[in-house]
Amino acid sequence: MKSLLAVAFALLLTACASPALRGTGDLGIVIERASGSVAIVDNSARAVLARVEGLGDLSHASVVFSRDGRYGYVFGRDGGLTKVDLLERRITKRIIQAGNSIGGAISQDGRLVAAQNYQPGGVKVFDAQTLELLADIPATFGDGKQTSKVVGLADVPGNKFAYALFDAGEIWVADLSQPREPKVTKYRNIGSQPYDGLVTPDGRHYMAGLFGEDGVALIDLWKPEQGAKKILANYGKGAEKLPVFKMPHLRGWAVAGGRAYLPAIGRHEVLVVDTATWQEVGRIPVKGQPVFVMARPDGRQIWVNFAFPDYSHVQVIDTLEQKVVQTLAPGKAVLHMEFTPRGDNVWISARDDNRVVVFDTASFARLAELPAQNPSGIFFTSRAARIGF
Amino acid sequence: MKSLLAVAFALLLTACASPALRGTGDLGIVIERASGSVAIVDNSARAVLARVEGLGDLSHASVVFSRDGRYGYVFGRDGGLTKVDLLERRITKRIIQAGNSIGGAISQDGRLVAAQNYQPGGVKVFDAQTLELLADIPATFGDGKQTSKVVGLADVPGNKFAYALFDAGEIWVADLSQPREPKVTKYRNIGSQPYDGLVTPDGRHYMAGLFGEDGVALIDLWKPEQGAKKILANYGKGAEKLPVFKMPHLRGWAVAGGRAYLPAIGRHEVLVVDTATWQEVGRIPVKGQPVFVMARPDGRQIWVNFAFPDYSHVQVIDTLEQKVVQTLAPGKAVLHMEFTPRGDNVWISARDDNRVVVFDTASFARLAELPAQNPSGIFFTSRAARIGF
Repeated sequence: MKSLLAVAFALLLTACASPALRGTGDLGIVIERASGSVAIVDNSARAVLARVEGLGDLSHASVVFSRDGRYGYVFGRDGGLTKVDLLERRITKRIIQAGNSIGGAISQDGRLVAAQNYQPGGVKVFDAQTLELLADIPATFGDGKQTSKVVGLADVPGNKFAYALFDAGEIWVADLSQPREPKVTKYRNIGSQPYDGLVTPDGRHYMAGLFGEDGVALIDLWKPEQGAKKILANYGKGAEKLPVFKMPHLRGWAVAGGRAYLPAIGRHEVLVVDTATWQEVGRIPVKGQPVFVMARPDGRQIWVNFAFPDYSHVQVIDTLEQKVVQTLAPGKAVLHMEFTPRGDNVWISARDDNRVVVFDTASFARLAELPAQNPSGIFFTSRAARIGF
Repeated sequence: MKSLLAVAFALLLTACASPALRGTGDLGIVIERASGSVAIVDNSARAVLARVEGLGDLSHASVVFSRDGRYGYVFGRDGGLTKVDLLERRITKRIIQAGNSIGGAISQDGRLVAAQNYQPGGVKVFDAQTLELLADIPATFGDGKQTSKVVGLADVPGNKFAYALFDAGEIWVADLSQPREPKVTKYRNIGSQPYDGLVTPDGRHYMAGLFGEDGVALIDLWKPEQGAKKILANYGKGAEKLPVFKMPHLRGWAVAGGRAYLPAIGRHEVLVVDTATWQEVGRIPVKGQPVFVMARPDGRQIWVNFAFPDYSHVQVIDTLEQKVVQTLAPGKAVLHMEFTPRGDNVWISARDDNRVVVFDTASFARLAELPAQNPSGIFFTSRAARIGF
């Protein structure tokens, strides 16, 4: 009888040891690249809730979130795709889906997770719930025997994914309305060596930066019959070759108030472009070579981090004044920034100081410092509600 | 011993009867106005999860959500403010905070809930966690003995709230950075009888529609020193008086692609306004007098519902073609529409048919019909991440 009682209490403990109920709208994931772990964070409490380990090679890792905000899908460099439960604070499922991968996206309806791969080159589409493979779209080109690295994968409305083929110089838009029967629209000869891409926040324009020549390829997804065109003909390395310490992420482009703000390659400048004409309308001098150029959600501020050797600073541009209004020193090797959903705070990772620093974006006060192991990317669940993340 | 065992099992049952863990990113609340109840819904499963009763008079009720997405704050017409737990599916706290109320807002940092009141006229600010009263800002004007009805309350960045005083013809912006010491900026003589207001999705412009004269009052919150100005001088009842079946909600204005789409008062038209100049640039004929004119999150479509007698239809405007491309008949007395966060679906309430209908916004297919008791407003938790809701 006594042992039965013990069993009952054990049951009690086991069954009730489940995590407390809580909302998921203010949760997030910080990538700890050196240790192959992620920190689960709470952006209301400004706290690290837990660490989840065993995610493999997390250099250049990125995260998308399930529609309900409970699960994060972490894309690792080693081709690993790991589904992390933010409530139970553990790995739900982990697969190695390719040899070498560089990020992913989640479909508009939240049912499909897509990974873009270097090796073998292509896009694989998985069921978001089970991680079952639903579609494999190899990036074949030319005589059909070559495959290309895939970059710049982004979700676009209509359960489509847009992405660029580095080796082929093509942009593809895959319609996954029927997940097992993807329909691919191919835009050929869009330019030499697209190295990254992004979709504007309204899901209308897909852009790919070019590595093999100057300029940016642009597709108006609302007018696909017009095909791709080249904009910003001088965007790139330009006539006078400058040392480029890090090719900036296009995903870091900011679009606010009818203007796009983008990192000038190799220059200490942020370029300002009119999104109606896609013509450059200005340049704002900054402290170093910009890497991420990110708009606060209301578009009033643009936050910029930099490549080596200026990578321990962050600058803030006021979009009304069109100039830098603040310079901050969050710590050594700032790799990423993420705004809270309505922009009151920004979280900044300082890799070599093993910390994440939280700032008030209105007063620039330093609100909190959180410990993290070589933190890189920071991703909040509010991304699940946005297009193109 | 046997009874101890029974106690243990009872404990087990009690302790473990708590609701299952789940994310809150795809939850929402549907107002059931006639029965004083709300339906808690899941927009991934397209299902009603539970009904919560005892919320009082819910005519004209609206809802804002906590930063974590777990709690909804329901503002009732009778001055009731009810905090509903979407996970435990019950009322956490309910207070009667005024005699007659017309909605509310939640601060940028999620810590403050504000209610706008007709009687007594003013704004009350509560701690979002406890509903403790933190600030009471009476809408006194003139000789200081009169108080005005308050309308058009909206959150704006910087933990501020903007709102209009119907009887005073003023717009106030209250800074709640120090919640117990609100600082109020008053804009006087903004026009006669502002009846509703809204803030643009970027939090920059606050607008109040005028009932006592034609036109709309506009404040550029980034340039407060410029004060209020009048735009759309002919917006209103105009020279030829038309029968107006329902004053349209300004909160239903859509802003997409540099244009605002707004209901023409008394006319079967949607007005198109350039948000750079705030000049009218077009009119789109529609089936009836528009009430809500709402943009799909990507801005490609504008969905419009109508006043009596056309209130059983909904029309869809394509913003690229600038014309109606679809007419739907969801049911009798369509009162409200809400898009899923990335715009793949829209939920529409048909009050007199006791149902909520879910449409695919790309194919216009009718995906689901959910039972609800005289449903009016539909509110999804993704609002917590947006400015001005």
